[in-house]
Amino acid sequence: MNKRVFLGADIGGTFIKLAIMDGQGNIIKKWSIETNTSDQGRHIPLEIYESFSKHLEMENLTFEHIYGLGIGAPGFVDLSSGIVYEAVNIGWKDFNLKQAMESYIHQPVFVSNDANLAALGENWKGAGKNVEDLIMVTLGTGVGGGVITSGQVINGINGTGGEIGHITVSPQDGPLCNCGRRGCIETYASATGIARMGYEAVQNGKETSLKEIMNLNGRITAKDVFEEAKKDDQVCRKIIEKVTDLLGLVLSNLAIAINPKKIVIGGGVANAGEELLSPLKKSFRRYCLPRTADACTFQLAELGNDAGVIGGAYLVKKQLYLYK
Amino acid sequence: MNKRVFLGADIGGTFIKLAIMDGQGNIIKKWSIETNTSDQGRHIPLEIYESFSKHLEMENLTFEHIYGLGIGAPGFVDLSSGIVYEAVNIGWKDFNLKQAMESYIHQPVFVSNDANLAALGENWKGAGKNVEDLIMVTLGTGVGGGVITSGQVINGINGTGGEIGHITVSPQDGPLCNCGRRGCIETYASATGIARMGYEAVQNGKETSLKEIMNLNGRITAKDVFEEAKKDDQVCRKIIEKVTDLLGLVLSNLAIAINPKKIVIGGGVANAGEELLSPLKKSFRRYCLPRTADACTFQLAELGNDAGVIGGAYLVKKQLYLYK
Repeated sequence: MNKRVFLGADIGGTFIKLAIMDGQGNIIKKWSIETNTSDQGRHIPLEIYESFSKHLEMENLTFEHIYGLGIGAPGFVDLSSGIVYEAVNIGWKDFNLKQAMESYIHQPVFVSNDANLAALGENWKGAGKNVEDLIMVTLGTGVGGGVITSGQVINGINGTGGEIGHITVSPQDGPLCNCGRRGCIETYASATGIARMGYEAVQNGKETSLKEIMNLNGRITAKDVFEEAKKDDQVCRKIIEKVTDLLGLVLSNLAIAINPKKIVIGGGVANAGEELLSPLKKSFRRYCLPRTADACTFQLAELGNDAGVIGGAYLVKKQLYLYK
Repeated sequence: MNKRVFLGADIGGTFIKLAIMDGQGNIIKKWSIETNTSDQGRHIPLEIYESFSKHLEMENLTFEHIYGLGIGAPGFVDLSSGIVYEAVNIGWKDFNLKQAMESYIHQPVFVSNDANLAALGENWKGAGKNVEDLIMVTLGTGVGGGVITSGQVINGINGTGGEIGHITVSPQDGPLCNCGRRGCIETYASATGIARMGYEAVQNGKETSLKEIMNLNGRITAKDVFEEAKKDDQVCRKIIEKVTDLLGLVLSNLAIAINPKKIVIGGGVANAGEELLSPLKKSFRRYCLPRTADACTFQLAELGNDAGVIGGAYLVKKQLYLYK
């Protein structure tokens, strides 16, 4: 029993990432299983349990060797009860994930929103370096977020805490968002939003190299827009300018309330690196209180897809008070 | 020694509010002294001490009968050290208020930003009713704010946490703010901002009853604008519409990140009551995630000018772990 470990799970719409970790957040083993969304996702807890059983056994471990499981779900979660209020992509509604998992593994299970868990992981072992106050924003298919104040993730009263993607930037004439409203920052700063603006530029007959890319590949990606901007395509430069201007405004307004030490940018769009960060930092400083901006540094996320499971291990540590 | 009390102090640019309170936040005695800003405010700690001495004595108490002093300063504060980084109206810069006060009273002193302290007080004994997640916004000469998540006030990494007034709503063409930037919500939703819009309407020759008020009183107040709007003055209605539209957007964007149970509105402008709240709630719901809006209720602040000193007592209780 002197080798006790932590389990982490990060449930996505297509895959569930699973990992066994030590107390320092080092991954002993990680793997994925497919997300079985049949029957409103009711088989997921058993399948997670069975997969952990198999892999623990391969490591000569049992569930008695674990401190607990930290698990992220893509939806609104109640931290204390472990109920997933709603996870549209999975099919859960008022589903007690904590109870379901604990009935199998007979060890403590803690549930969090997936983006909040990723922020926790990134703060522990990644770009955050355990600062007390941090904003993480993930620019992927959508825009996700996690906010940490005084070392605690903001979950909020009914699980929508940190939903940065739905902060409104152009309420009147913005693009329609998946949430049903208009002009959420997600409609601009996500990979989908950037690609859409590139596509619209081509549709509107703008003079841009995206036209050839569209002809060649049949589509335009956010990566294309960043690459052509780097080659000084003026239309692409304007798109990046708009994206970083709006995201800088959102982050500065949030930072004025949170006063974080770090803002960590993750997700596929973050692969653009300095092409994204440099104008974003300028825009942030333009809109932010100087004192707030002075205290805050931008960093790219470091853990990639492992952030969620590592955050899971950390959530267990925090909830069980396994150290300060 | 069985009657132990709490001291609260709320330092403003003109007056310092002082109070002796019991452990339930009931005010035993409250009074004010003038703020002595001479010599960069260096006499303030001694004057607070002397005033407390006198009034404690009147109550047959000494500093040995107190648990501690909670004190609010109008500036950026470091909660743990008690250093006031900067309080422009007082003249302090990197001033260790905690140390200065403790050297006199020989009991624990805790320092916070004044708006954050008011939020704490309002959440304890006022409109907040001790919810875990709350946003308080004070619409006075300026716009102040305090944000509470998981029962803790967000102070941030260098004391700018909760500076809601400087959230930007019209970065390009907004009015100049005291902070040096343009279009902060303070320039619209403060009493000063509302009065300014009324004055501008008169200057621009708009058809409004504010013209007569201007002629009669030589000035226009926020109260005038609300009163004339109530009498269906269309220019005043438009001003209130604009103010509540912008403030609703700011609060909804903040609520999406914080997911609070309550938003408490205080300050002089809050005296407009439903004339303010009703359109504000509509605007909030228009811009907010429905799930976030569903969980959140608006309330008017209840403690008025006592919020700060009561928050001071509560800060002492929290910091000394006098109860959960």
